Amino acid sequence: MAHHLIIGGGGMLGSGLVRSLADKNNQSSVKITLFDLVEPQWASKSEQNDNNVEIITCKGDIADPATAHALIADRPDIIYHLAAIVSGEAERDFAKGYRINVDGTRYLFEAIREANEQDGYFPRVVFTSSLAVFGAPLPDVIDDNQILTPRSSYGTQKAIGELLLADYSRKGFFDGIGIRLPTICVRPGKPNAAASGFFSGIIREPLAGLPAILPVSDEVTHWFASPKAAIGYIEHAGKLASSLLPEQRNFTMPGVSASIADEIAVLREIAGDEAVKLIKREPDAAIETIISSWPKAFNTKIALDLGFIPDSSMREIIEIYVKEHEPQWLSDQ
Amino acid sequence: MAHHLIIGGGGMLGSGLVRSLADKNNQSSVKITLFDLVEPQWASKSEQNDNNVEIITCKGDIADPATAHALIADRPDIIYHLAAIVSGEAERDFAKGYRINVDGTRYLFEAIREANEQDGYFPRVVFTSSLAVFGAPLPDVIDDNQILTPRSSYGTQKAIGELLLADYSRKGFFDGIGIRLPTICVRPGKPNAAASGFFSGIIREPLAGLPAILPVSDEVTHWFASPKAAIGYIEHAGKLASSLLPEQRNFTMPGVSASIADEIAVLREIAGDEAVKLIKREPDAAIETIISSWPKAFNTKIALDLGFIPDSSMREIIEIYVKEHEPQWLSDQ
Repeated sequence: MAHHLIIGGGGMLGSGLVRSLADKNNQSSVKITLFDLVEPQWASKSEQNDNNVEIITCKGDIADPATAHALIADRPDIIYHLAAIVSGEAERDFAKGYRINVDGTRYLFEAIREANEQDGYFPRVVFTSSLAVFGAPLPDVIDDNQILTPRSSYGTQKAIGELLLADYSRKGFFDGIGIRLPTICVRPGKPNAAASGFFSGIIREPLAGLPAILPVSDEVTHWFASPKAAIGYIEHAGKLASSLLPEQRNFTMPGVSASIADEIAVLREIAGDEAVKLIKREPDAAIETIISSWPKAFNTKIALDLGFIPDSSMREIIEIYVKEHEPQWLSDQ
Repeated sequence: MAHHLIIGGGGMLGSGLVRSLADKNNQSSVKITLFDLVEPQWASKSEQNDNNVEIITCKGDIADPATAHALIADRPDIIYHLAAIVSGEAERDFAKGYRINVDGTRYLFEAIREANEQDGYFPRVVFTSSLAVFGAPLPDVIDDNQILTPRSSYGTQKAIGELLLADYSRKGFFDGIGIRLPTICVRPGKPNAAASGFFSGIIREPLAGLPAILPVSDEVTHWFASPKAAIGYIEHAGKLASSLLPEQRNFTMPGVSASIADEIAVLREIAGDEAVKLIKREPDAAIETIISSWPKAFNTKIALDLGFIPDSSMREIIEIYVKEHEPQWLSDQ
């Protein structure tokens, strides 16, 4: 029975991943452990459902070295390390960001190394990295050989995680793969304080009949994936045959390069001019400056060769949101 | 009075750096603290010489968090962090390499951050990185935007040091600059076990009338600096005006791209055919494979713009060795 461990199992991607893993395992039995700082809201205790899917939830602090040892005690086959202090918090609390994002990752990797040396334990480890590892000046299209010069502590911590993953994999302590996820769009839920929040907000809010603020110009272009595509990347990274993995263990995921104008055009097609009118233009030079240093597009040859499948277009990205969340505006039309 | 702290002050570069700093300070008084695992052999205790140069030697373990606090207690103006477990040892002893090269570096940076938050302490920090941060596949000429994909734990540890230095500098905790040194040639002293040892050995040994083994073909090309140039880079990095430093705080130093054939041609010019005959060709496929993944040449635009001055040629590199070490062979001719 395959055992999957999802560290950071309580977040949007973690809970999507467990649903996907559980759905696809009707034939064979599977055990999934969901771990997070707060116990993931899947089930309050171990449960076995009709589809031979056993789901266990647990909580703890990955910045405590004992946690990783406990998590790998029964030797999960595939470990998805999605847990991180997010960008804004890592920037505000320098020490905490390094403690969770660097030390926590290293404790996990060290626990696996010790187990590897004890009994040959050799799990697949999937690590989610971020476009925040990149910093200006950037070419318009970034390839797999671009230097990582993060402009945030979060990006630095993810870049260090990538380096550790590559070295532990090279040494044969585990079988690692690090995937840099595009900016997720349309992110469901409430608006948040992230500088990138408006990319989702200008779609999500108008579709709910609510106003949305657009702080940048229509030409701003960025790299996107739907939550569905991102979860698909993580799942695919967990399943890829070891023999296929390239020496370069960390690389950027495919995505859709789209501008604000592209997003608005799709919103108009789907929800009409009235929805588009809910977007309020409030140019913010500070945000425009931050965003202007972000990546616009990638040549993700390594990932495409390995079969990671992106959304086909911004239209598909927005339709995925509409299908999954049935926003109020559209049902009112 | 300027106070320089050299961490790793007992090595070839550290002892060359202190000589250079002391020589150039005839006008103004200077204090230099030399720190290493074994007490550097400069003087057994604090001493003041005629040139207003005060040199202090001390020893300790940088993997002990208390050490960095003690080293910065009297707030040195410029810190040169040259200390590291070398490549071969970091590969053999995984935990020790991370303890010294990653944890030791982080303890130093954290101690400076604490001092910065206490009293605004803001030293220049010069960190010596390595070409080992690069891994194949590499273009023939590598620019300042090449991704770091180290193929050794040592290279990984240096790449992590670069990322930390950039983040601490970006946050304003200190004023850091990370310089990737070329392979040093001609390295004085006895042959060592490094895979790159023959680049120096095929010059140094014949000049001493001794045989040298050449395990690779004449076409093998690599990136070199004399010890004199490398010490000049470190000193220049310590003196550069903060206002000149680019956002990218880590970059490769200029060097001389030269092949084995180039080295041998200079040896023949300087010491004749008899010296060249002391080079014994013993092809070693394993070493050839390792070396074939090493960098051949760089476009070091950032460093050149900042005034780092390389050797002019392999001829100059070898003449520097001859001048400084007066090898036996030449004096016998």
